[in-house]
Amino acid sequence: MVNRFESLDRIFSPKSVAIVGISTSGGGVSNTGKLFLDILLEHRFKGNIYPVNPRGGEISGFRVYPNINDIPQPVDYVISCIPAAHILQLIKDCARNGVKAVSVFTAGFSETGYVEGRELEREIGRLARETGVRIIGPNCMGMYLPKAGVSFAADFPEDSGCVGLICQSGGNTIYTVRAAAERGIRFSKVISYGNACDVNESELLEYFAQDDETNIVAAYVEGVKDGRRFSRALRDLCAVKPVAILKGGYTDAGKGAAASHTGSLAGSDEMWGSLMEQVGAIRVHSLDELVDVLVTFQFMRVPQGRRMAIYGVGGGATVLATDDCAAAGFLLPPLSEEIREELREELRRAFGSDVGTILGNPLDFPPIASSDDVYSSVLRKILGWDGIDLLLCHVPLRGIMLTLPLACAIFDAQVRNVLKIANESIKPVAMVVHCLASAESRQAASRYVAECSEAGLPVYYSVAGAAKAIDRLLRYDDYRRSIGSTTCCNSSHAPLVR
Amino acid sequence: MVNRFESLDRIFSPKSVAIVGISTSGGGVSNTGKLFLDILLEHRFKGNIYPVNPRGGEISGFRVYPNINDIPQPVDYVISCIPAAHILQLIKDCARNGVKAVSVFTAGFSETGYVEGRELEREIGRLARETGVRIIGPNCMGMYLPKAGVSFAADFPEDSGCVGLICQSGGNTIYTVRAAAERGIRFSKVISYGNACDVNESELLEYFAQDDETNIVAAYVEGVKDGRRFSRALRDLCAVKPVAILKGGYTDAGKGAAASHTGSLAGSDEMWGSLMEQVGAIRVHSLDELVDVLVTFQFMRVPQGRRMAIYGVGGGATVLATDDCAAAGFLLPPLSEEIREELREELRRAFGSDVGTILGNPLDFPPIASSDDVYSSVLRKILGWDGIDLLLCHVPLRGIMLTLPLACAIFDAQVRNVLKIANESIKPVAMVVHCLASAESRQAASRYVAECSEAGLPVYYSVAGAAKAIDRLLRYDDYRRSIGSTTCCNSSHAPLVR
Repeated sequence: MVNRFESLDRIFSPKSVAIVGISTSGGGVSNTGKLFLDILLEHRFKGNIYPVNPRGGEISGFRVYPNINDIPQPVDYVISCIPAAHILQLIKDCARNGVKAVSVFTAGFSETGYVEGRELEREIGRLARETGVRIIGPNCMGMYLPKAGVSFAADFPEDSGCVGLICQSGGNTIYTVRAAAERGIRFSKVISYGNACDVNESELLEYFAQDDETNIVAAYVEGVKDGRRFSRALRDLCAVKPVAILKGGYTDAGKGAAASHTGSLAGSDEMWGSLMEQVGAIRVHSLDELVDVLVTFQFMRVPQGRRMAIYGVGGGATVLATDDCAAAGFLLPPLSEEIREELREELRRAFGSDVGTILGNPLDFPPIASSDDVYSSVLRKILGWDGIDLLLCHVPLRGIMLTLPLACAIFDAQVRNVLKIANESIKPVAMVVHCLASAESRQAASRYVAECSEAGLPVYYSVAGAAKAIDRLLRYDDYRRSIGSTTCCNSSHAPLVR
Repeated sequence: MVNRFESLDRIFSPKSVAIVGISTSGGGVSNTGKLFLDILLEHRFKGNIYPVNPRGGEISGFRVYPNINDIPQPVDYVISCIPAAHILQLIKDCARNGVKAVSVFTAGFSETGYVEGRELEREIGRLARETGVRIIGPNCMGMYLPKAGVSFAADFPEDSGCVGLICQSGGNTIYTVRAAAERGIRFSKVISYGNACDVNESELLEYFAQDDETNIVAAYVEGVKDGRRFSRALRDLCAVKPVAILKGGYTDAGKGAAASHTGSLAGSDEMWGSLMEQVGAIRVHSLDELVDVLVTFQFMRVPQGRRMAIYGVGGGATVLATDDCAAAGFLLPPLSEEIREELREELRRAFGSDVGTILGNPLDFPPIASSDDVYSSVLRKILGWDGIDLLLCHVPLRGIMLTLPLACAIFDAQVRNVLKIANESIKPVAMVVHCLASAESRQAASRYVAECSEAGLPVYYSVAGAAKAIDRLLRYDDYRRSIGSTTCCNSSHAPLVR
């Protein structure tokens, strides 16, 4: 008899995959099986792939088997796209073949609100427990396991990382992985688990608590099957790893939507709020906040305190950035007169004047492409000053009068120098690329975001988002210390999780 | 003696512009005068342009005059890029030449915190009142007057509209105009007024109250010169036109930044909050919120109530959209069983099944490119149902498993049909293009945004942003009714302001 951890662990490294319910004719949206096949090929899945369809035939050079039991080798993982009515028979067939897990993409179960759908889903759960075949879903995207080459979107990264994600919505999983990947996050295991008739949120949290590949956990949850087990699992997980949670269906109308989406009983918002606070989970209210938190916990060293310096270009952007950071609980100690005088001298030497700058904290001075030395020298002075604990730099890409190419020439220098200084320093530095007001500026922003995240810098699309997420990191660190935990957060200025 | 309105009005249609402090050699960032010249040319300014530099010469085919008084014709508007020390002399010269307005781009005044800068600025204000030459700034970008062909960014729209914007920060002006323009907003007059030593926020608000070209007013304000006058001006303006305000420097740290930016005394946040509430101004906390409000007030008919239907693609996105709208105070009445049955029949006829959809409110069903008839028929049913007052549609662009081109084929159909239905209906429809997680998806989003805003549909980048802005419109309409105002808001379902 395998223990709980092993029962799940063995499904996360499939060596062979069958796609049941693939059509040999037609592609596009209506042939989901073919989409899954293309994605596996795109991700260079190394094991055997077995398309299954009663009519047999061939697809993309693969032989199509009429039935899972016609496949001569053992199959580890089955992706099912067949109608709900045939799922029970499929699981029985899978049990005979020794399949470890089936993810049921198919919808039409408890989320329909019909008795038949609810009953069928219960039946599937029962059969899973009886046969030992683990069921993911129904009504889900299944698993993204970068190490195994298993994925459900062609553009998910092929390399793996240390973030574990569980998500009751397939679409929200897909957006979160894509948005986080753009900012440098990589994943250990991602499970889109839908209606959760067998593998459920509590079991997955229990798993992640023990999983050595996972250092940070993110969850989108609409409802839980067993409140008591979930509370316990969440508490235990939070004691050892940071956990960020987005609760879908926190309003009454949202609860109704959640019931129609995954048949979930959403629970009261107060109950969720107090549970998360008690156990030290990080509660977020949007997927973008979730991604901001992941970026922060992955890439930012824990600041030693809340004393922040802000540096960017543009007076108005600087005022608003200051409001956003102060509102999130950061302090902006004024620069000492000594430092200010040094900066003033430096700028006068370089530009002949300090006019049009804000020489304080916040700091606003124009980055001229030709003066890397002044630039890095100024930034080094700020960051080295023992009056601050962290530096936030911001690039308001469409907030200056210049055409985009001219603006980019300026901001290239800013980004280049911030990266250089951040690399030298043990104090944390955050970068914000914001004020994006055209397709072209968003294109340019993507380039900066890629550059920063490749260099291991936490990078954000808004100052408010950055400030809020860094505040979460500091609060989490406080909580962690308060319970005497020593795992995960490294107070000696090393990155939190690498 | 001209009255106050005329005193400003006559500076808003300059027929000739001089750029003082332009260099005939070198371009780029360090030659701001040349940047202004290029922008005027780009905007096809029809009047005479006179570059001014003591050294004379020629630039871009224009003769450069050594002094403003060497110009043989009258000059209406002067853009000054010369050092602070020479500004007083320039104004005296301008007075002699009959110049109506000078905008002083130059910084180095009260915002420096030095006595000399503060004194010089006071001197300029005094001279302006003495000579009648109106001064904009110092430390500002000046005026964007699309009708006159005057601008301070090359990519601002050449066509004009009905939004008046005043902004104490040049960068914030530039971002706001660009971001709003992308969403279909056009401007009557935009004034970046900086330190406001002469033309100030109160006078501008007084002006907009009487300006027939302006129907909606937006303001970014860091501090006010005369609290009593400002309160009166804001109250009078709010009584006749919607006014959205972003107060920069609402935190203590932000106040300090505002002082360093425009020499502003920021005032207490409580004072601002209660003033804005009293007079019915629309308070926002970010430039993006400001743009959302402009889009809503410009393009959305006032809904008859808060009963909203939500339609989009994807269960998880739908749950989160529902939470966002419910949290902003909207009701989501469940569809009547009759309507649901009709929708179910329609979908079964078209797709053979209603599985994988949420047939209620919110509504989630997959838009298949080939079924425009079903699509528009379903949407028409929802929008026509008398149980709702408005429809919010959302497109989670990177929240489905498909590659972007396949996803776009689906969303093209969605956008196309929503546009068709919105066009037929007197009930307001809002569109949200969200979940953008790559440069390519943002590119595609820009296309949808352009398509929707060209069709006169209010379009947003987040559901939360849309819901918040529409809530503002409803609150504003309530306020307007409560004071017995009949201007601006049209309760007979016509667009609020066209």
